[in-house]
Formats: sequence, C-alpha cells, structure tokens
Amino acid sequence: MPADSQAQAFDRFHIDQQLLRQRAFNLRWATVDEDVIPLTAADPDFPVAAEIREAIGAHVADGVLGYGPTEGFVGFRAAVAKRLTSIGVAAEPDRILATDGAASALWAACQAVLSHGDEALTFDPVDFLLPHCSERAGADVVRCPLEPGTGAIPEGALEQRISARTKAILVCNPHNPTGRVLRRDELLRIGELAIEHDLIIINDEVWSEIILGDVELISIASLSPEIAERTITISGFSKTYGMAGLRIGFIHAENESLYRKVLEASGAPRTTFGASVLSQVAAEAAILHCDRWLAGFLDHLRAMRAMAVPRLNALAGFSCAAPEGTYLLFPDIRETGSDEQELAERLHDEARVAVVPGLSEWFGPAAEGHLRLSFATSEEILDEALGRIEAVIARG
Amino acid sequence: MPADSQAQAFDRFHIDQQLLRQRAFNLRWATVDEDVIPLTAADPDFPVAAEIREAIGAHVADGVLGYGPTEGFVGFRAAVAKRLTSIGVAAEPDRILATDGAASALWAACQAVLSHGDEALTFDPVDFLLPHCSERAGADVVRCPLEPGTGAIPEGALEQRISARTKAILVCNPHNPTGRVLRRDELLRIGELAIEHDLIIINDEVWSEIILGDVELISIASLSPEIAERTITISGFSKTYGMAGLRIGFIHAENESLYRKVLEASGAPRTTFGASVLSQVAAEAAILHCDRWLAGFLDHLRAMRAMAVPRLNALAGFSCAAPEGTYLLFPDIRETGSDEQELAERLHDEARVAVVPGLSEWFGPAAEGHLRLSFATSEEILDEALGRIEAVIARG
Repeated sequence: MPADSQAQAFDRFHIDQQLLRQRAFNLRWATVDEDVIPLTAADPDFPVAAEIREAIGAHVADGVLGYGPTEGFVGFRAAVAKRLTSIGVAAEPDRILATDGAASALWAACQAVLSHGDEALTFDPVDFLLPHCSERAGADVVRCPLEPGTGAIPEGALEQRISARTKAILVCNPHNPTGRVLRRDELLRIGELAIEHDLIIINDEVWSEIILGDVELISIASLSPEIAERTITISGFSKTYGMAGLRIGFIHAENESLYRKVLEASGAPRTTFGASVLSQVAAEAAILHCDRWLAGFLDHLRAMRAMAVPRLNALAGFSCAAPEGTYLLFPDIRETGSDEQELAERLHDEARVAVVPGLSEWFGPAAEGHLRLSFATSEEILDEALGRIEAVIARG
Repeated sequence: MPADSQAQAFDRFHIDQQLLRQRAFNLRWATVDEDVIPLTAADPDFPVAAEIREAIGAHVADGVLGYGPTEGFVGFRAAVAKRLTSIGVAAEPDRILATDGAASALWAACQAVLSHGDEALTFDPVDFLLPHCSERAGADVVRCPLEPGTGAIPEGALEQRISARTKAILVCNPHNPTGRVLRRDELLRIGELAIEHDLIIINDEVWSEIILGDVELISIASLSPEIAERTITISGFSKTYGMAGLRIGFIHAENESLYRKVLEASGAPRTTFGASVLSQVAAEAAILHCDRWLAGFLDHLRAMRAMAVPRLNALAGFSCAAPEGTYLLFPDIRETGSDEQELAERLHDEARVAVVPGLSEWFGPAAEGHLRLSFATSEEILDEALGRIEAVIARG
C-alpha cells in the first residue's frame, strides 16, 4: 500500500475498505460481493490503536517467542485484574486465565461447570455461543424470554425455569443482541437465585466496555462476596479493540476451586489450548494504554447510534430501541410483513447491505422477526448503508 | 534493552539468557533458579528468524486485525500445502485447517475420531499428548512397546494389540522421545494394518523438519492413496522455528468427510477455538522464507548432537543413542543405580541443570530409567551443562 494511504489507515475514523476486503472475514468484507456493505459480525471496521501495534512490535523485536506461562503473562493477568477492579470486582491476577478468545473462555467455563443431564439457564434471545457451549458440555438449555422491546428480565421468569437439574445461569451483559445493560436489581435477583439454588453464574462481559447510554455497567461479581464466589467472569478484546483475529480473552473466578476446575477444563496445563503471547501483549496494551482511544471510539459510536436509530424507526414496519451497550441494532421488523430471512435477503440483493437475520439458531426463537446490524463503522459507510436500506424499504 | 544487545539477539547463535529468563516458560529459563540451565521442554533457546519478525511487523502495520477466515488464511493454507507436497503428501489447501498449536490439532483430531469405549493404539514410550488427547476423547489407550535402544517397532507387536475396539493408531514421527525416524517398512505396516482393520492414522509430525541423521522423513500419507485417505497429518511450528508462544499448528486430511469431522470437532466454525492471524502470518513466512535459516539451525543441531552424544555415553551408567530426528537426547540411565526422578533431582540440585525425568505420566512406562534432554541451545550453554553433569556423575 502506498505510504500516504498507510498513514491514513492509522486514523481510527478512516476505513480502508480495500484492506478490509482482504482481511475481514466471518460474514464481513472479505466474504461478500464487492458492492455489498456488511453490517454483520460484531467486529469494528477500524484498525487497532497505535499503542497496540507498538506493543506487538516491541515484543516481536527481539524474537524470543517460545512458550509463555500456562495461565498467561504476569503483565496480562495484572492488567486484567486492574480492569476488573476498576468495575468493582475484587480480582487477583492469580485467578485470571488467558484464553484463546472470549468464546474459548465460555467453552472452558461450560466444560468445567456443566455435565450431561444438567440444565443451563440462559435468555431468549441471546448470542448462540451461550447455549452452544452449554450444549457442547452436555447440558440441556432452558431459555428465559426477555421482555420484547426493552430486553428486561420479566419478574418471576427466571424463578419458574429453575429445576433440581439447573446447574448454571449464563448471563450476557451488556446483552447481545438486545443491547440492554442489565440493572442492579436484575443482577441481584440472578445472584440471589444462584445462592438459593447453588448455581454457578457464567457472566459473559465481552461487551462491557461498550456502554453508550446513561447507565452503569455493573459486573455481577461486584455485588457481594457470596455472589462473587460462584461467578465466572469472561471477557475478550475483539469487540472493543478490533482484534478478533488475535483471539484473546480471559476467565476470572475468585473462588480458587472453581478457578482450578476452569483451568483444568481449558486444556492450558497440557498445552492443548492457550493464548498467543503476542495477543496477550496486545491485550495488556489495550487495557493499560488505550483509554483515550476508547473514549474516542465510544464518542463515535454514540454519534452513529444517534444517526441510525431514528432512521431505522422511520422505516415502515421497523421498531428499534436504542442500545444502551454494544454497537448492535436489533430492530423488530415483523410489521414489514416479511420474516427476518426474507428481509435480510432482500436487503442483500436490492440494497447491497448484509445484515444478520434473527434466526433462532443464532439468537434463539425470540429473535425471529428481527434483524441485527452492527454500526461500528464510519459515518460515511453507515450513512450509505442506511440510505440504501431506506430506498429499498420505501419501494415497499 | 540497549541497542547493541538487541542487535546481537538477532544472531541465531546468540542466546540472550536474561531475556529467556523473562520469557521462556514451560519448565524453562523463566521457571528455574538463576543458576540453573534448563535442557527441559522441547523449545529452542534461539530467537525466531528475522523473516518471521518482519512478516508479523508487516501484517500489524496497518492495524486491521479483525476476524480471520474460519479455516485459516489462504496464504497460510497454501504454504502448508506446499510444505506437505514437498514431502510427497498430495495436499490441497482446502483440506488444511489452521489450529491453536499442534497440541490443539491433536486434541481436535482425537475428538473427531475417538469416542468412549474405543481403543487408541500408540507407542511406549511416546510424548504424553498422544495418550492424553486420546483419553480426553473417551478412548482407552493401548501402548505398543518400542524396541529398547533403537526405538524400532518390533515385528508383530502392533498386530497383537489390535482389537475390535481399536479405532485409531497415533504415530509420532520423528518420535518423541526416542528421536527415531520411522522407516518405510514400519510405516507401510502401520498403513496396511489401518486398511485391514479400518483404523484412522493420526500422524503427529511436529518434528518432521528436524532430521539430523542420514535418513529420509517419510510422511505416512505419502505412501499410497489408500493410506492417505485414512490419515490425519498434524504439525506445528514451535519445535523448528522457536514460536511455541504463538500457538500455531495445522491439521491436514485429504479425505473430505474426515476433514469435515475434524473441522467440526475443532470448534473453529463456532469461533470457540482458532489460530491468531499473526501466528498464521508468522508460520507462512517460516515455510516460505526460512529455508536458509533452517539449514543453519540443522547444521548447528548436528554439531550439538556430535558433541553431546559421546559425552553422555562416557558417563558411568549412561547409554544414549544419537537421535535421527528431534533435538532430544533420551539416555538410559538404569546402570547408574538411580531412578529417573532421583537422578533428575540430583542433576538439578548438584549440577544446576534441569532435565526431564522419564516419568511414566509424561512418556509411558517404558520411559522409566531414562532422562530427556533438549540440545537446542548454544554450544557454550550446552558445553557448560554437560560439563556440570560430568562433574556430578564423576563424583559417583
């Protein structure tokens, strides 16, 4: 690439579509036709912060890239502990495990906690990874429907779905795909139920740094020592820092015996799974040195949300809440008269915009009649995509 | 680090012990006392080739590090196919899966092929990962003892260990810990048995580039189309290129349905596991641009072998074959009157050299009475370590 365009790519608000078409997979630029804008997988279109590139470069410079520590570098674990402490979770570095991404962390947590015949309680809709990892561990998944529109947890809805077989409750906060940030009273109810029924809380916080609304992110492990001792907190760096390709996440469990179970299930002690040392270094830099970068990214996302939500709501048959967290829009499109698959196909074919249909297999039965769109792109691209959608919907 | 010492670190024969003491884990420099030389985990003490550092740097420069393709970058898969083709395996890029290290590849292969109640046939001694991954997939492990001293497969020994439950045979070639490179007739017998009894061959070739003797590495999938269609070939880049910390390996299966099973078992299609994009880029550079680096490394290893083997054989009670492949020494120390654990502890405490005791849990029952030493270090360090061992053994 010529020097001037490379310089531009370092500007976080510049998007190099040509590069994305070579590099961005998982339903994104590299996997769609040249004229299609993908608002699909939750992966920002922006390059990583300069501080992250520099940290990788500094670690690579001397060329020593042999085995890292089983549980992760001291620096990585300390940085994650600092991050968790900043949101009220009493995290010690030696209860933090570096993992091959947040999805891998979720997989290990489920393997550690769930067995054949157990029930795993989660929500509907919810990202497929929570039920998928539960099922892969042998559990039956029980889904608690969220309130349509708001995504709140209906009073009494969890309670009536707990059985003698329930072993864990899987939480996603902020919630994918609804964008809701769970409230203190909802989290306290989950915590109390977990204590009452001796459940483990598996808390997926991969979106915890993307808070756009005037709400506070409350990490469930921060609520009380009793809740903390039965909570496994999981997160990663892909959504916030644009490094899904580096595959780096973590698991925290304050409870030592729970931590040991997760560590064993992860495969890390036998080297069958682990996190790249460069990815750990990148994540450490993200936590320690990218506050300003992140503040700018959040400002941009708030502006994109302010632009997109009213325009979606103005579309005939669309109803779309403003997400409090995440950069996901989850409009209810049932009034259009099309189902999610038909409308997604029509938008792809006619608007040349790819969105994720709210298929049951991806988000649960309650996602049907919805689309999911990511707005972690530039104003120019988002405006263009929305304009194309508006033109197609206006044709009726 | 000061600029001049950084420049020295780029010389592959210079070893920066201070840096290794910060960075090299898994029983190595960062995990032992300051005055201990670790000849333990099979991970070279040398920095990665400049070509690998440069490839990582070039990929990071533009900052686009989002989701990679599920099965790996086209460039990575093409490079691996080229490498396999060069050793006679008819490999197409679309039957190659990038994995989070060779150990992870072995884990996925076992998950795909083995179930509860199956038997997995492997060798004794053999690296713990082969039985471990078989057991984690639910199989019972049956071990075929290798000929003491040579590591050859005794005539008829495999045949008598095959039952109606045998589902797979796990091969490690070159063999860890014996250092033997399997011969054509041995591989043909394995292939014929696999055809006769409908077994899958899981072939761990992580050492395939470290051939020191005057023998040819024969990849079992190269022997015939019938053998190839039931073979899963696994390898990685840690042993040869010093990048264990990057966690990158691959799986090849020519047979499409077998490939699909392994892909599904790997977790890659659901993003629960995968290989970092930077690690793929590093591995691609290793295959395509490091032939000269590798030739120099092999020359050095041959010189180290020539120095170490006679000196070990001169020790009272030691008997050590020269490894044909790998950079591992596996002396039989039974005539010393000590067992492997006692002698390893004595060498640690008195010689301040860490070696791997041939414990059954690491290498199988036949490893007892042996030590394992890695010689992938500088002449200076290896000479010092051997001198210290000689002094301790000479004291009796």
